[in-house]
Amino acid sequence: MAQKPSIPKGTRDFSPVEVAKRNHIIKTIKKHFETFGFMPIETPSFENSDTLLGKYGEEGDRLIFKILNSGDFISKVDDVTYSSKNSSTIAPKITEKALRYDLTVPFARYVVMHQNEIDFPFKRYQVQPVWRADRPQKGRFREFYQCDADVVGANSLLQEVEFVQLYDAVFTDLGLSGTTIKLNNRKVLSGIAEVIGAQHLLVDFTVALDKLDKIGEEKVKEEMLAKGISATAIAKAQPLFNMQGSVAEQLDQLKDLLVTSEVGMKGVAELDEILETVTELGLKSAKLELDVTLARGLNYYTGAIFEVAAPEGVKMGSIGGGGRYDDLTGIFGLKDVSGVGISFGLDRIYLVLEELDLFPKAMEQSLDVLCLNFGQKEGRAALRLVTALRGHGLRADLYPSSTKMQKQFKYADKRNVPYVILLGESEIAQGEFTVKDMAKGEQTNYNLTDLEAFVTKVKQQ
Amino acid sequence: MAQKPSIPKGTRDFSPVEVAKRNHIIKTIKKHFETFGFMPIETPSFENSDTLLGKYGEEGDRLIFKILNSGDFISKVDDVTYSSKNSSTIAPKITEKALRYDLTVPFARYVVMHQNEIDFPFKRYQVQPVWRADRPQKGRFREFYQCDADVVGANSLLQEVEFVQLYDAVFTDLGLSGTTIKLNNRKVLSGIAEVIGAQHLLVDFTVALDKLDKIGEEKVKEEMLAKGISATAIAKAQPLFNMQGSVAEQLDQLKDLLVTSEVGMKGVAELDEILETVTELGLKSAKLELDVTLARGLNYYTGAIFEVAAPEGVKMGSIGGGGRYDDLTGIFGLKDVSGVGISFGLDRIYLVLEELDLFPKAMEQSLDVLCLNFGQKEGRAALRLVTALRGHGLRADLYPSSTKMQKQFKYADKRNVPYVILLGESEIAQGEFTVKDMAKGEQTNYNLTDLEAFVTKVKQQ
Repeated sequence: MAQKPSIPKGTRDFSPVEVAKRNHIIKTIKKHFETFGFMPIETPSFENSDTLLGKYGEEGDRLIFKILNSGDFISKVDDVTYSSKNSSTIAPKITEKALRYDLTVPFARYVVMHQNEIDFPFKRYQVQPVWRADRPQKGRFREFYQCDADVVGANSLLQEVEFVQLYDAVFTDLGLSGTTIKLNNRKVLSGIAEVIGAQHLLVDFTVALDKLDKIGEEKVKEEMLAKGISATAIAKAQPLFNMQGSVAEQLDQLKDLLVTSEVGMKGVAELDEILETVTELGLKSAKLELDVTLARGLNYYTGAIFEVAAPEGVKMGSIGGGGRYDDLTGIFGLKDVSGVGISFGLDRIYLVLEELDLFPKAMEQSLDVLCLNFGQKEGRAALRLVTALRGHGLRADLYPSSTKMQKQFKYADKRNVPYVILLGESEIAQGEFTVKDMAKGEQTNYNLTDLEAFVTKVKQQ
Repeated sequence: MAQKPSIPKGTRDFSPVEVAKRNHIIKTIKKHFETFGFMPIETPSFENSDTLLGKYGEEGDRLIFKILNSGDFISKVDDVTYSSKNSSTIAPKITEKALRYDLTVPFARYVVMHQNEIDFPFKRYQVQPVWRADRPQKGRFREFYQCDADVVGANSLLQEVEFVQLYDAVFTDLGLSGTTIKLNNRKVLSGIAEVIGAQHLLVDFTVALDKLDKIGEEKVKEEMLAKGISATAIAKAQPLFNMQGSVAEQLDQLKDLLVTSEVGMKGVAELDEILETVTELGLKSAKLELDVTLARGLNYYTGAIFEVAAPEGVKMGSIGGGGRYDDLTGIFGLKDVSGVGISFGLDRIYLVLEELDLFPKAMEQSLDVLCLNFGQKEGRAALRLVTALRGHGLRADLYPSSTKMQKQFKYADKRNVPYVILLGESEIAQGEFTVKDMAKGEQTNYNLTDLEAFVTKVKQQ
């Protein structure tokens, strides 16, 4: 009996319209990656397990999809391990490869493997799928694309400035005005932990602080206390809960708080330079804000931290993020390579554009012209015309059989074709073809030997 | 100790230049897929195992990459199976998903799952990677792209005509003149087996015949005899070994041979119509040939069979192939959906274009302009200029630090940048920037407030 087909949970089929819309976003992102001087690389979908395992923490390791060895994989398991019946000790014996979990670790591996071919500073972008064995839920998938741009081998803060401009350029081009680019600096967070005397609890402190927007001041403080941060320390951190005014004013408040911390003041100076340069150059449609509660991926970032919020009124988590990390490639033996990078959240950007109705209407059209089929002889003439239109770059098609006109028009309707061509016996005799504008219902005749007028009209649309 | 990183055998990293060249091919293929009215879909990288297993024969099943279940996978194996220590009975208990092996079975699954949303005839294209646990060798990889276009739900031979035109359009656009599109028909092969009295040995007969080019007439006949095809039968098939003359003449020879076979004559009529229509419409740079030895994927195809050979003088297997199949979706419960499709061999096309030096030179350039960095103050002015050039769509970059000029020029050289901008103190004072044409060595000055002239010059290049 035939199977009733399905796809694995957390994965998706993309229909033609969905592919067109996703490509619209990807194309826009790639275009700006390239104008900003980034170069594309691609890495394999699966890596050797030891490249990936141990890089994302225990939770990450659990979420990595492992590929079963081919052939008689069981024969490679020694008897002691086999008789343990323990999944976590058997897994490494029967799998050697795993699907990539993000694009960052493969990129680090790439830089180290190809360091002799690379000219630093190396600006690379990468737009490829990643896989995570996470519990699927609304907006969270087991296969999804990441769109990353990173620079390695450049310490200059101009890189940070460029990434702010890059976010602005992409979102403006997508028609998504009013995004907020939030900026923070890991050194500022370290400085805060230092001045309040909670260095050893930096991670707990920032994880709690990061929730300020969601759970409010009281609950954040409760969490800090619960994690062992003293009431005195929390009191010293009070200015963080009251930051207000312009960006410049907020920076001044930070300076007051951090004046005794060398690392903290270095962080403030970096923020200052980035904010000043961006302000001087101007942004098109995004707003740059200081956000000292921003701490994403703390153990990873060493300098600037970015996150982008959708325009106000759209309920959506961050649509982009990134930051500077000082030792990405160290895990693979290449020391002292500073990097900074950002990522675009394709799926969330898609949802935001959909919600705000910002996809160009053309996305819904996969065909410019459909030529109806009036029979064997007319069909050949039609194919000749369609061939010529395709030669002019139009997306043109011939209905494959001379079935009832009604059925052919219905197909044209369903495919949302703006123009339908009628090429029957009488048109052929007169050396013409009739074009029906499906939106307006108007019909126009064109000469079969002069397609320019029609082609121009379609392209202008 | 840090790991020395590597990637799994049979997989590849793609450098920026390689990605650019691959994208050049993919973009060209997609462009023509779209002008021919095909619509893109995408399916997940992994499918449920039962969607894939049993669809490619025993050998295929062996080559499918299986994904280990997450969590405590061993606990799902019953004691009897576990104690068997048999890889092939244990595998189905610990894996539920597998990486796709081709794009055809996932497409069939897609059509069946989405049949109520699809308007037939459905012309879809799909360009995605597939994975096979094959022994890697020169030109054969464990991860590679397939570029497929198929029409389902249309019986008309106009589809076959279009696919010949599509091959011609793509290869012509890639600059690859002189390809040979070989055409055959499964019905002709069936007819031959019928008239020589070897229906039950059709597969053996065609598999042997398919090798004519490679091993010659004598060896093909030896193989046929070894497979149990009688000497009498082989003698009757003699005309196949002597086919010559124009396509029309060859068709006549086929008609003589197949006159008593209904299915054979139907195949000849189909070939006749396709060849005649294509000839009438004309091809740009490809040659269409009849090849009765062509039998690829025989058990699969039911009508036309296509294969494309690289231009003469280039040693390379087929760079494309396809055909008509009459019951693709039957395996998933949707009967009577006729399909016809073709595939482009990306990796081989890449090698051919490389061998014939047909990649545009622009592929080697990832940047149009590099602006040198003369220091903090000049750097800001430079970033302003670079920002403006990016706004005009140029791929522009600023060297991130004001290091020695020699080093900056060396970087420009390595990145193969055609234009380098010098914006030092004196240029800024005069409201100008200096452009060095790296190929000619010439320097030209432009006004900082009028970028059009420079932008136009770069774009014209």
